[in-house]
Amino acid sequence: MIIVMETGASRDQIDTVVGRIHEMKLGAHLSTGEERTIIGVVGIFPPNLEEMLEVHRGVERVVRVSSKIKLAGWDMHPEKTRIKVLDFEIGGNEVTIIAGPCSVESEEQTMSSAHAVRGAGAKLLRGGAFKPRTSPYEFRGMGKQGLEILARARDETGLGIITEVMTPADVEQVYQYTDVFQIGARNSQNYYLLEEVGKAKKPAMLKRGLSMLIEEWLLAAEYILSQGNPDVILCERGIRTYEKETRNTLDIAAVPVVQKLSHLPVFVDPSHAAGKRPYVAALSLAAVAAGADGLMIEVHPSPDHALSDGMQSLDFDEFAALMPRISAVASAVGRSLPIPALA
Amino acid sequence: MIIVMETGASRDQIDTVVGRIHEMKLGAHLSTGEERTIIGVVGIFPPNLEEMLEVHRGVERVVRVSSKIKLAGWDMHPEKTRIKVLDFEIGGNEVTIIAGPCSVESEEQTMSSAHAVRGAGAKLLRGGAFKPRTSPYEFRGMGKQGLEILARARDETGLGIITEVMTPADVEQVYQYTDVFQIGARNSQNYYLLEEVGKAKKPAMLKRGLSMLIEEWLLAAEYILSQGNPDVILCERGIRTYEKETRNTLDIAAVPVVQKLSHLPVFVDPSHAAGKRPYVAALSLAAVAAGADGLMIEVHPSPDHALSDGMQSLDFDEFAALMPRISAVASAVGRSLPIPALA
Amino acid sequence: MIIVMETGASRDQIDTVVGRIHEMKLGAHLSTGEERTIIGVVGIFPPNLEEMLEVHRGVERVVRVSSKIKLAGWDMHPEKTRIKVLDFEIGGNEVTIIAGPCSVESEEQTMSSAHAVRGAGAKLLRGGAFKPRTSPYEFRGMGKQGLEILARARDETGLGIITEVMTPADVEQVYQYTDVFQIGARNSQNYYLLEEVGKAKKPAMLKRGLSMLIEEWLLAAEYILSQGNPDVILCERGIRTYEKETRNTLDIAAVPVVQKLSHLPVFVDPSHAAGKRPYVAALSLAAVAAGADGLMIEVHPSPDHALSDGMQSLDFDEFAALMPRISAVASAVGRSLPIPALA
Amino acid sequence: MIIVMETGASRDQIDTVVGRIHEMKLGAHLSTGEERTIIGVVGIFPPNLEEMLEVHRGVERVVRVSSKIKLAGWDMHPEKTRIKVLDFEIGGNEVTIIAGPCSVESEEQTMSSAHAVRGAGAKLLRGGAFKPRTSPYEFRGMGKQGLEILARARDETGLGIITEVMTPADVEQVYQYTDVFQIGARNSQNYYLLEEVGKAKKPAMLKRGLSMLIEEWLLAAEYILSQGNPDVILCERGIRTYEKETRNTLDIAAVPVVQKLSHLPVFVDPSHAAGKRPYVAALSLAAVAAGADGLMIEVHPSPDHALSDGMQSLDFDEFAALMPRISAVASAVGRSLPIPALA
Repeated sequence: MIIVMETGASRDQIDTVVGRIHEMKLGAHLSTGEERTIIGVVGIFPPNLEEMLEVHRGVERVVRVSSKIKLAGWDMHPEKTRIKVLDFEIGGNEVTIIAGPCSVESEEQTMSSAHAVRGAGAKLLRGGAFKPRTSPYEFRGMGKQGLEILARARDETGLGIITEVMTPADVEQVYQYTDVFQIGARNSQNYYLLEEVGKAKKPAMLKRGLSMLIEEWLLAAEYILSQGNPDVILCERGIRTYEKETRNTLDIAAVPVVQKLSHLPVFVDPSHAAGKRPYVAALSLAAVAAGADGLMIEVHPSPDHALSDGMQSLDFDEFAALMPRISAVASAVGRSLPIPALA
Repeated sequence: MIIVMETGASRDQIDTVVGRIHEMKLGAHLSTGEERTIIGVVGIFPPNLEEMLEVHRGVERVVRVSSKIKLAGWDMHPEKTRIKVLDFEIGGNEVTIIAGPCSVESEEQTMSSAHAVRGAGAKLLRGGAFKPRTSPYEFRGMGKQGLEILARARDETGLGIITEVMTPADVEQVYQYTDVFQIGARNSQNYYLLEEVGKAKKPAMLKRGLSMLIEEWLLAAEYILSQGNPDVILCERGIRTYEKETRNTLDIAAVPVVQKLSHLPVFVDPSHAAGKRPYVAALSLAAVAAGADGLMIEVHPSPDHALSDGMQSLDFDEFAALMPRISAVASAVGRSLPIPALA
Repeated sequence: MIIVMETGASRDQIDTVVGRIHEMKLGAHLSTGEERTIIGVVGIFPPNLEEMLEVHRGVERVVRVSSKIKLAGWDMHPEKTRIKVLDFEIGGNEVTIIAGPCSVESEEQTMSSAHAVRGAGAKLLRGGAFKPRTSPYEFRGMGKQGLEILARARDETGLGIITEVMTPADVEQVYQYTDVFQIGARNSQNYYLLEEVGKAKKPAMLKRGLSMLIEEWLLAAEYILSQGNPDVILCERGIRTYEKETRNTLDIAAVPVVQKLSHLPVFVDPSHAAGKRPYVAALSLAAVAAGADGLMIEVHPSPDHALSDGMQSLDFDEFAALMPRISAVASAVGRSLPIPALA
Repeated sequence: MIIVMETGASRDQIDTVVGRIHEMKLGAHLSTGEERTIIGVVGIFPPNLEEMLEVHRGVERVVRVSSKIKLAGWDMHPEKTRIKVLDFEIGGNEVTIIAGPCSVESEEQTMSSAHAVRGAGAKLLRGGAFKPRTSPYEFRGMGKQGLEILARARDETGLGIITEVMTPADVEQVYQYTDVFQIGARNSQNYYLLEEVGKAKKPAMLKRGLSMLIEEWLLAAEYILSQGNPDVILCERGIRTYEKETRNTLDIAAVPVVQKLSHLPVFVDPSHAAGKRPYVAALSLAAVAAGADGLMIEVHPSPDHALSDGMQSLDFDEFAALMPRISAVASAVGRSLPIPALA
């Protein structure tokens, strides 16, 4: 931590800052220039040291030199995280595809989706049993019944299951059915939920919040990691900007940035980013080219009749046609994505 | 709801849309122009009707004509909401000031703050017992002990108490101590929490999320209102933009916009918006001039030693000096803010 | 300038950076800590020194300690800038109101506006003769004829004139008619135009760009100032954000931030910020409460028939009713705004 | 155009709107529902009809049904635009790479860059002779001398030349040297410049403004097209958002969105988007995967000594290593990018 004092900061102001540093059992190294004084702070820092020092009069700026990110960063974990789910692995050379409907609407809709996406090469089935909705008057999911349908789909197809958990009290129930917890964008800073999922010993996919800094996203992952759950997947799903042609703005650079800062696998959700079916393919291909470890794509047997997000869902044929294109890009960047041979 | 079909939409596509409308027991009125067809939809709409219709091929745009906002809007409630707390009222002619420290740190810090802000004219004492922190390694509040300290501060000073509740399981406990629930920006779309607070019969202040549309904010208020709790206060606290000189960008226009769309009282939190002490006064005055029903200002006995948000907290003297200035602006816009005479 | 080297930066990398600093005839002071090395740079910096040093391998971050702002900052000019226009002054204790139509549409429309706004207390008449339009197919102003009409309005009413100049080649012509140049948001980084206006010896109002940092805005003002024109007025007119209820988001905090960083007067344009008539009054009052030195308000004899921006224009009665309210807030914050007595 | 009247709009208000429509020689079709009246407008619209109608009291919303985009849209030009430059074509199946330094700094630096990028497969050499800089005190380019160096580089290597033009008065001079005009992000709404380039008969690359809607970007292209210059290339270079890890946020979805709305070729500038060397490769690959017709990449013989943008420039080896990776992705998505065989 470096404290840059204002030009003309008084001796008293400098002494007050140094005194405060010593109060916290830290060391202070002064470097007095012609124009201003700079104070280096050394020792083991309390996490909000920055704030504590910035408040002093005469301080112009406090520069944090070391990152706040610990468990999610490469320093503490120099190997890329690989997560085992059923009989496959996330974070390795193979690109992992998650696909399925926004919401579980019925057994039939879910089963047909499971078979279709598995046939095209997906490894995990998505489907919401609990749905966060902007308005209290919209369809909010089938709840426990939805979880049971998902579990049956796993039994029948061998796909892994990923579904959203929205509140700490539901973690235990969802744990009994799911293979991977999904934490949605709106809950990305719901710290009690993050910790509860951190205590549950199943992988978790953490979506980026609507206007979350990448640093804040990694710190949210720290909430899960610090409870002892090492299996966190990050998922970029678009951020909110002024542009209106797409539902959100896919921050494609988040893929290489996360990979530079963290050992955790990073996925992309092109469906929520685009918000419109015609753009899902281009974003899927771009994400894999940028190095994403996987994709989460919305697929529905009949998007025109979906209870939610139909506008951004692919139908079975569109998804089946997209998969070989994704596979070709994966190969071009040195990754693999095996597509099952047609029967 | 109006459905604008694409130029050149086929007869089949139009029929499919009309068929879907009839499936939902709604009426469809066609208006066939030279270039394109427009379909008016009438009846009682399911909440996500827009989504359901947008997905169809041949549809260019769906225009919602009536607002999704129900209980929060003027149509259902043509009188401005006034909320009684202890012996005063929020939402009337008098501007209400909430003040106090970011976090409850000790009995002494809280009590001295309570006396200071009451002496200067505040009606409610703020103070966090549970603190949402971006990093899991930061100070997260005193919990139940903090609530007890707040309650003693009320007993001693007569101030109302407002404190944050972060998770549904805590609502009951916080209810026992607080006069007003605070729902923070990060929890503004934590729907389970909103509903739980909606069931508790005490007023709630709902902060605007970091990148929440005003419409989404009012829909979040609907979650509370629809559970039977009519006493919701909205609080603008700055949105996230690209600008870096302030912590957030205070969307001052949110004050008149909310007042046009809703009968709920609207407050402003200049401290979180500014993030820096020197700008708190200007934002406070601007908010009252724009018509805010109240302000929430961070005040700390010694901002230099605050465990959180010291940089944006006023000390007692600064707050006492600001209050008469706010009162003068309140009078200039036809509101009142009585300042106690000095002892 | 402080250069923070990465943990584990090699001796070679440090030497390269120090060598580069010496190449530029600057001094380098090393401070070698346990974990990393920090290099202080002293001397007279080339303006993009930051960039030049950031590129080196082993550099984690370069922290500029002194501001890039020179002529616009308080250090070089410790008195607030006051600008004399005709018989009044901008930047003093009196709040200055600019009002008038978006575009000059006819002599009659301009003259009636001039009389109306003067009667209500405005000091300057606005009106565009050259209009920047998003589409090439929209009304783009009356050009020279518009300038002549504005000049006649000044002769008849004694109001000062402010009008937009859009390209360097027009500066000379506009100079002959206007009292204050207006540089629009879209041209706020049109450096050739800024410099040309800097050479003309008449005051200039520089609007903030749609997504301009406050620092960039002040640097744009430096382009004008550095050509010898000291009379720059800054005008906040809203920035682009994700929110859609208003045309732009008024960054009200820009008022105190600019005043902390610069001696230049700062105005607010509530009309372009709001984009909708019902919100103009609240934003006007907020701006003056926040400390703005003036306002620029769109007023039109018949907003329903305006060729541009009618939706955000007040009619004469609305403007006349607003002025005493602004005056009351001005008094409440220790400023003045005299309103002419009714005839 | 559809006008949705407010619930409870009076007969008078409706008549006023209809009267206004007739005044403009347009037709009005009323559709009177139980709750509200909707008015369809037919005829040939003035470009700001929307604004003209929105201002009327009783109007809730005006919905434009047809796009404002004319010449840039598919309706008027159903073939994808292909642009011939020297001996190659932009907008065809082959992906076009533009590479070179941010600024022309010397003959030696430019020549070595030209040879290096040509050897690796680039078709156009970039290099700024006139540089827009945020601060007036930074390096602003070599001017005419820079243009001459670029022309010599073309003569020597056969590469096409692209360089920025910043003001209308310079168009003629730049025309004499360049093969493609570049219009930078800051000038993307400098309408006089756009029109002047529209009159010059050489292709122009129009960068997207920092916070420009895609619709506004296409309308800016209309300024060039409507002057008779059909050869416009659009270049996405990142938009400004709250995220700080990258210089800008690459809006990768702009590629498929532009391609859906327009026949103009669309490029991506990964260097300005990333702002940091380590992310340039991932963004380049993503852009080609998303369907971009070309890339513009900053390359410098010695990024550590660049006078501008060194931090985001690749050196020759990095660029040479990246090109075959881009070529592989191009092939994977059905495009081509031939890489010259090593000598």
